[in-house]
Amino acid sequence: MRDSTNLTPPEISDLIAAGKVESLVETLSHFHPADLADFMEHLGEEDAANLFHALPEDRRVETFELLEEDRQLNLIEHVGLTFMAPVIDRMSPDDRADLVKNLPPRTTERLLPLLAQAERADVKRLLAYPEETAGAIMSTGYANIGPDLSVAESLELLRRIAPHRETIYYVYVTGPERELLGFVSLQDLILAEPTQSISSLMNTDVISLPASSDQEEVAKHMEKYNFLALPINDERGRLVGIVTHDDILDVVEVEATEDAHLMGAVAPLENPYFRTSFHSLAWKRGSWLSLLFLAEMFTSTALHEFEGTLSGALSLVFFIPLIISSGGNSGSQSATLITRGLAVGDVTLQDWWRVTLRELGMGIFLGIFLAGLAFTRAWWVESDYLIASTVGLTMVGIVLFGTLVGSLLPLVFKRFGWDPAVTSSPFVASLVDIFGIVLYMNIAYQLMGSPTP
Amino acid sequence: MRDSTNLTPPEISDLIAAGKVESLVETLSHFHPADLADFMEHLGEEDAANLFHALPEDRRVETFELLEEDRQLNLIEHVGLTFMAPVIDRMSPDDRADLVKNLPPRTTERLLPLLAQAERADVKRLLAYPEETAGAIMSTGYANIGPDLSVAESLELLRRIAPHRETIYYVYVTGPERELLGFVSLQDLILAEPTQSISSLMNTDVISLPASSDQEEVAKHMEKYNFLALPINDERGRLVGIVTHDDILDVVEVEATEDAHLMGAVAPLENPYFRTSFHSLAWKRGSWLSLLFLAEMFTSTALHEFEGTLSGALSLVFFIPLIISSGGNSGSQSATLITRGLAVGDVTLQDWWRVTLRELGMGIFLGIFLAGLAFTRAWWVESDYLIASTVGLTMVGIVLFGTLVGSLLPLVFKRFGWDPAVTSSPFVASLVDIFGIVLYMNIAYQLMGSPTP
Repeated sequence: MRDSTNLTPPEISDLIAAGKVESLVETLSHFHPADLADFMEHLGEEDAANLFHALPEDRRVETFELLEEDRQLNLIEHVGLTFMAPVIDRMSPDDRADLVKNLPPRTTERLLPLLAQAERADVKRLLAYPEETAGAIMSTGYANIGPDLSVAESLELLRRIAPHRETIYYVYVTGPERELLGFVSLQDLILAEPTQSISSLMNTDVISLPASSDQEEVAKHMEKYNFLALPINDERGRLVGIVTHDDILDVVEVEATEDAHLMGAVAPLENPYFRTSFHSLAWKRGSWLSLLFLAEMFTSTALHEFEGTLSGALSLVFFIPLIISSGGNSGSQSATLITRGLAVGDVTLQDWWRVTLRELGMGIFLGIFLAGLAFTRAWWVESDYLIASTVGLTMVGIVLFGTLVGSLLPLVFKRFGWDPAVTSSPFVASLVDIFGIVLYMNIAYQLMGSPTP
Repeated sequence: MRDSTNLTPPEISDLIAAGKVESLVETLSHFHPADLADFMEHLGEEDAANLFHALPEDRRVETFELLEEDRQLNLIEHVGLTFMAPVIDRMSPDDRADLVKNLPPRTTERLLPLLAQAERADVKRLLAYPEETAGAIMSTGYANIGPDLSVAESLELLRRIAPHRETIYYVYVTGPERELLGFVSLQDLILAEPTQSISSLMNTDVISLPASSDQEEVAKHMEKYNFLALPINDERGRLVGIVTHDDILDVVEVEATEDAHLMGAVAPLENPYFRTSFHSLAWKRGSWLSLLFLAEMFTSTALHEFEGTLSGALSLVFFIPLIISSGGNSGSQSATLITRGLAVGDVTLQDWWRVTLRELGMGIFLGIFLAGLAFTRAWWVESDYLIASTVGLTMVGIVLFGTLVGSLLPLVFKRFGWDPAVTSSPFVASLVDIFGIVLYMNIAYQLMGSPTP
């Protein structure tokens, strides 16, 4: 495997400046396109454009597809649309649609007339599907054949169309209206007798999804059936595209990142950390922090209400952070377990009752356990059994509340069609803080009354 | 797509009890093995075993591979090792090794002598690789050919061996010692002239990884190069296995779940939520909660120290939860962003300085913003500019501390080879709580002194 040419960027710059870009291209000729794309990411914009210009046409297409979005855009700026149009024409349909989606509207307007007619129509069709649906991630580069061909004829056809298809390992059998009749794998084809007909060879129990399906649904299917590609149909059952295994790997990663961000109380970033502007990051963080701040304001109101109780037993204050953080932590755990369980399909909405029972048991157990620790700690510091009892009793209640809210809130969110990952650790912790303080003060009031200051 | 037979489990039970299992098998014959496995998961153990017994042998192998671990184990118990050994013999090598890994040691001892010799040796070889390495997830069911064959001879060979191989879409070219010389895809083979030699057709820039590589490394390679399969070599460069696209989808999901659990302060679950015992869950949660409790105990010590300051200005207490939660939330956000960035490769250790600068800016900005909110809130409630100033100043400090600790701690953990996801939201929040309280009390003391109670 090769990751580097042992040339430093300034040396490469010099080579290019000295007009030796041809010899550089030669050196890079055995690079995998993914490595070549990586290499280009590390060059200056000017150098990258010069190198790209000097690549053989095939290499240009393969490499361009694998560049990061912002590098693609800025390469287009440097080498010009007229030069790029034939490259874009030959990109795989899904990558091409993604690229066009990211272009500034004015560039798109100028680009579309430069594309070949079929490719232009294809881009427009793919762009019509809403984001995060099967239609938006699928490719139209599937291989399809008619049921009346023989195996030998099919192989001949595949040889001809292979260069323009995303994969020929799965071949879909379609009727006159492109309706999906079955599928054969390339392995089936080469194992079969050349004279056998496709209709007798094909598997008719073909599993497909409509283009309007959520991309997570597509990922779950691919995971379950271990397909190389999943056929996508329109509302009339006609084949319109395929989603391939590599697309799904991206979907799974992107969805996991989105969930992780939400669970950490950040509005999901659309780009990698360093490619997100300070301004956008500040907004995605600040908005959540403000919201959580507003919720948390109730804690000061609640404490204010019980000023009398507090001033009579100031020691109560020492345990506030300990109590609310323990409750918040138990709640975070439950929220994390259930949210992730929902995401991977281990937990479903129908399980709400089992979740409740389980977390009730867990809350009681963990609550009593932590209450033991808390009572001991409070007794040790204060040697006051009223204070220690207040701390211990509150702990049982807050941990139980945390586990229940943390586990049920993701289910409630899911039920209403909202993203359960929004019930993040900080979100649950804020609810627990408010409840915990009210509970603590009430228990203190019950046990100790409101002593005269 | 078919997910159900429209039969309820009791109806199925009746069918089986009435000796009509053959007709049930017939009904299920067009099910995809993954759907059949799903169907079996919903049956009682006895019914599942009876149904399994009645399946044709090919279906048994395919379906058994796709069952959940615990269902596999309990099927073995019900139908017996002698019946299962031929099924296990024909499983794909990686699934077979995973199964044996999960068997109780005594069952393994009894099973191994029942397996065919080659399969037994294969299991032992695969089990020798440490968990979570390329060796532990790879399959030995790869297709390899010699460089001297012609295209036609290779296709002939592939036809013969295809049924015993995980995939024949990628074919590896190996020398006499099984050293990796190159690779050809099945697509290359069917596009080439039948008389061409493999050595002239093969791609020699083949990318492989050693068996000792971390599985995350394998996933990153598969993602980058969009391979169907990645060849794995031993320390002497000999081909020992392949990791296929479907294995990697599992790895990516499992790693994301592991990270999510750690970030929610739960020791990662090895099984799905409902399949994890109460006892094991209580331990995985309780141990973390205890640890966080111990850390959080310092907050009570710190508050105790400043009893004088607090009793002189009880209003300070009202803002404690608001301040520490805001600090904790900012810290959670940073920890989440950086941990996830490290996991997907957007952030690397070399970026520590860029991360520091960025989060410093972000911390100052968010700190001042939240301080503004906090000052306003405190002034509104208390109308005391000393209290409001203390609250505001502390907010700047704690948010800045939170963002810096939250962003740098994952990098420090990574640097020492620990899992950065351990620097979870609750973990960072605890550190922030302690720091925040000490800071708050010190600022209060500086601004207001220690008034006589």
